[in-house]
Amino acid sequence: MTEVAFQPIGRRIEARPGDTLLEAAQDAGVALSAVCGGAGICGDCRVRVLQGAVTPLNPVEEDLLSDADLASGLRLACQTEIVGESLIVVDVPPDSLSAAQRSQVEGEEIPLAVAPLIHSYDLSADPPSVDDLRGDWERVRDLPAGEWRVSAPVMAELPGTLRGHGWRTRMVTLERDVVRFLPPETTPLGFAVDVGTTGLAAYLVDLLTGVTVGIAGATNPQIAYGEDVMARLTLCMRDSGGLSRLQKAIIGGLNDLLHEVCAQASVAPHRVVDVVAVGNTAMHHLLLGLPVEQLGSAPYVPTVSAAMYTSARALGLDVAEGAYAYLPPNVAGFVGGDHMAMLLATETAGQPGVTLSLDIGTNTEVTLNARGKLWSCSTASGPAFEGAHIRDGMRAADGAIERLVWKDGSLAWLTINHAAPVGLCGSGILDAVHVLRAAELVTETGRMVAGHPNVHGKGHTMWYEIVPARQTGHGRAVVISRSDVNEVQLAKGAIRAGIKLLVEQAGLEESAIDQMIVAGAFGNYIDLAGAVAIGMFPPLPLERFRQVGNAAGIGAKRLLINAHERERAAVLAGRLHYIELTNHPHFTDRFSQAVILSPNPWEE
Amino acid sequence: MTEVAFQPIGRRIEARPGDTLLEAAQDAGVALSAVCGGAGICGDCRVRVLQGAVTPLNPVEEDLLSDADLASGLRLACQTEIVGESLIVVDVPPDSLSAAQRSQVEGEEIPLAVAPLIHSYDLSADPPSVDDLRGDWERVRDLPAGEWRVSAPVMAELPGTLRGHGWRTRMVTLERDVVRFLPPETTPLGFAVDVGTTGLAAYLVDLLTGVTVGIAGATNPQIAYGEDVMARLTLCMRDSGGLSRLQKAIIGGLNDLLHEVCAQASVAPHRVVDVVAVGNTAMHHLLLGLPVEQLGSAPYVPTVSAAMYTSARALGLDVAEGAYAYLPPNVAGFVGGDHMAMLLATETAGQPGVTLSLDIGTNTEVTLNARGKLWSCSTASGPAFEGAHIRDGMRAADGAIERLVWKDGSLAWLTINHAAPVGLCGSGILDAVHVLRAAELVTETGRMVAGHPNVHGKGHTMWYEIVPARQTGHGRAVVISRSDVNEVQLAKGAIRAGIKLLVEQAGLEESAIDQMIVAGAFGNYIDLAGAVAIGMFPPLPLERFRQVGNAAGIGAKRLLINAHERERAAVLAGRLHYIELTNHPHFTDRFSQAVILSPNPWEE
Repeated sequence: MTEVAFQPIGRRIEARPGDTLLEAAQDAGVALSAVCGGAGICGDCRVRVLQGAVTPLNPVEEDLLSDADLASGLRLACQTEIVGESLIVVDVPPDSLSAAQRSQVEGEEIPLAVAPLIHSYDLSADPPSVDDLRGDWERVRDLPAGEWRVSAPVMAELPGTLRGHGWRTRMVTLERDVVRFLPPETTPLGFAVDVGTTGLAAYLVDLLTGVTVGIAGATNPQIAYGEDVMARLTLCMRDSGGLSRLQKAIIGGLNDLLHEVCAQASVAPHRVVDVVAVGNTAMHHLLLGLPVEQLGSAPYVPTVSAAMYTSARALGLDVAEGAYAYLPPNVAGFVGGDHMAMLLATETAGQPGVTLSLDIGTNTEVTLNARGKLWSCSTASGPAFEGAHIRDGMRAADGAIERLVWKDGSLAWLTINHAAPVGLCGSGILDAVHVLRAAELVTETGRMVAGHPNVHGKGHTMWYEIVPARQTGHGRAVVISRSDVNEVQLAKGAIRAGIKLLVEQAGLEESAIDQMIVAGAFGNYIDLAGAVAIGMFPPLPLERFRQVGNAAGIGAKRLLINAHERERAAVLAGRLHYIELTNHPHFTDRFSQAVILSPNPWEE
Repeated sequence: MTEVAFQPIGRRIEARPGDTLLEAAQDAGVALSAVCGGAGICGDCRVRVLQGAVTPLNPVEEDLLSDADLASGLRLACQTEIVGESLIVVDVPPDSLSAAQRSQVEGEEIPLAVAPLIHSYDLSADPPSVDDLRGDWERVRDLPAGEWRVSAPVMAELPGTLRGHGWRTRMVTLERDVVRFLPPETTPLGFAVDVGTTGLAAYLVDLLTGVTVGIAGATNPQIAYGEDVMARLTLCMRDSGGLSRLQKAIIGGLNDLLHEVCAQASVAPHRVVDVVAVGNTAMHHLLLGLPVEQLGSAPYVPTVSAAMYTSARALGLDVAEGAYAYLPPNVAGFVGGDHMAMLLATETAGQPGVTLSLDIGTNTEVTLNARGKLWSCSTASGPAFEGAHIRDGMRAADGAIERLVWKDGSLAWLTINHAAPVGLCGSGILDAVHVLRAAELVTETGRMVAGHPNVHGKGHTMWYEIVPARQTGHGRAVVISRSDVNEVQLAKGAIRAGIKLLVEQAGLEESAIDQMIVAGAFGNYIDLAGAVAIGMFPPLPLERFRQVGNAAGIGAKRLLINAHERERAAVLAGRLHYIELTNHPHFTDRFSQAVILSPNPWEE
């Protein structure tokens, strides 16, 4: 056996000599893109071997990889076999991951000690006899002192476990509650989920080692009931059965992911003894089945902000009978536990100097750490960067144009997985606006300029044709319209105004920001220079930016792995000063300036 | 307003002048028999007014009550109205209670301080405003210090309760768990149930005053799956879905009773914030859904003996979301929490001298307190006294012959509610055997003697005709057969052998017993002199016997009303020395002697 470590995802797996790196990746739950299933046809599963012994380059790889690929050390994971027993370190470039995973689950991880809230105790028992008629629970030896709370469904596992495993069991506890009687030597697992308004990210974690053993992403099934948060809250307020339907939808989605990650690790979902879920305040309420009438109407107050522990089984999750679901505290308003988790994952509160962390989504949450003082706000950036309200917008899936450059007098494009283009995902939309602005086909105020052969229409109905119909995957042209540009202006204006107001609140200038931490699926793929060029972010040197991926999901994992993170979350909740933007005296002003497509709209 | 106290049930209620005693009884949850619904037709609702001012006897009563009734001070509750404001004390004779209640729920109560495990806190909150956007939970004032555990379904009640009741709520807690957010000034209620193999008894209790406000009895719906415990366990062992079916059946039965007692008190079942359930070990396991394979086969060990706390809602009970069900510790083998509850209700462990307490049922549990040392056993008395395995046996319902005497050379009978006879209930079966034995129509060894005009058949098929077919409710004769007599011998022999072995274990003679406490539906109605005459009980002076009714049910109520009773139960469980009779070296000997129909079979 040898160990294979996948970077930068940070997953490790035992493998045998002769296994391919693709097989190892699949066992480790690393969703390497491999459309052909490892047959050496698609050429998708490109990786770099940073360390360790593998088979040399073979003719299949020489055929499928370009000279540039070969020069940069790329290999096909399906063709590369493990040799010997030494540690192998594999680098997985982002575009070798399947689309769902790529967009929703990966993120930068800061090492953390493994100290989960659950504890395991290896217990044994004497079998009963006519001279020993004690109950099974009473005959368990080595039970740690104290009063244990064992619910009936958990207790029900004890007789079968003891009798099936030589009168031994591994008792898993959370504080004074017994969560499960596992078979002996069985690893307790945790399930961390980031419940986004649009996407879900799930992680299965070994709670003894902290290693992620399964990972999966999916669309939030609540999408069917409304694309944005307010639409879903309105449904609950209008229809008495709405809350229960939305709760069922999200629980169903999470169970699907649970089964998926457990299948990756070849374990039963009932092995999961702890659950952490993070989401914005609305997702939090809809997941827990908390009433949302008061959250959906002014002055928009949640049922609860404090951290919640509740029975995961009672919620409907297919985990261990006694497992609890933990949801970290909500910050305020719609700024929920997902932002809290992101702040923990990025260690924002512990950074020196001035750090601004933001998580871009339908709502963008922003926190400023101004030399130890923390300010947060939420700004309604809208779903434009998730592809909604954009004529040819789409989610980051195969065929989405994700990158655009100005080449030979027109927009040149790249799609996800090199599929035929069908639309624009968030980073493509942002690129289109900034490149057209740079080419002066769009003005600072968002008007489109006629004269270019690809620009069609008049006034407010003008559009730029990016891909003609004959080249697309669906036979319709992919375009960006003037109203799409205006949507982007509103989105980026909201984000920039939020940043500006927080910085002002701290008595600083934007230029004082030492570090900008950009989280979120979209935030991870955008072209920072473009984002600065159109004024979404302040004009800081690019090296001050850090794109950290799904930090909320990573933070959820940290809350699972280390109980102190939960204490830190409680402390952090008390330290954050929340600024409500909807009634902030300067918001309208700042926002109307920030929609200008310029790096520094305040000077205009 | 005036107060009406019902004796010996021990319930009190506020009533108005002009209310009838029947109305007051109904409000108090005293299930007075009143077939006509209070119209003054049936004459069932007979009571005695021991104290207080009521309207004088009216013509309806003079018509419906016999001269003997009138002479003994009986009145009809439906015709007797309250006058003035002074306390009224009403005595309710057992045969004025409806049959189900009479047989299963009543019992002698020893006063107990009200100190429930749940606590109530009256809280208020400031309404939210644009300047106060805290969560509802965070805006609650006067929250006692400490870390409260609030599950999502309980938290979900908070916004509606606060907004519906002037920003006030009464928070009900159990240790650190919040059980419910009640509207302000709402009384928290408890639900106590005695889960018998055959019958269920349920009590709704005001947890602020300890007063019983609803009471109901029913047949255990598991009867459909087998009359005795072993038949039900066998079903679970044979059929993988059996346990779940039996659990559903009992939960359904308990929910029916819950709704019934709540209807009596005009409250919603969700007001119930604490539940106590007692039953033998098998009923305990089937209620909790614990596996019974190891309980149903040698050496017969339970899953757990310790007290259990488990979510009542997760069990399926329609009570408050956060309510726990508490089940006291099982003693050992099949001696369960019901016997524990009976011992608490009768204060057996605290009695001076030598006390023997027994609860007669399909299994009869016996505990001996020999000057502070406690011994317990269970003896398989079988279902004969519940009417099973007896040719014309039936449960204690209308038309059951409950009392028999020898009159004018044959058996004279009395039925429950004076209905036309249809069979024999337990006390009637016992009477039949002892009266026929006294009349020498049955020998000491249980043979039937020919020659009497009512004795028919030959040898093992002989029978005595108690009621000819033309006089019965169903047109068939009611008889007692020789094999019925033999069933009674086995039942009473098992009980007597158990008593004898416990007394021997303590190094005593039966005559040393200072006090015999006889509990259980059947035990409450039997003729003690008859039971002694056939040797079911030792030949002690009758004044040493105490018939206490459903002491297990009363004990369940005590565990609800006073948390110290739960501690006492834990201590008591540690003090009881359990004697397993099935493999006791002297049991077969003693049993074979004890089946003799004689007050002192040991001398034969």
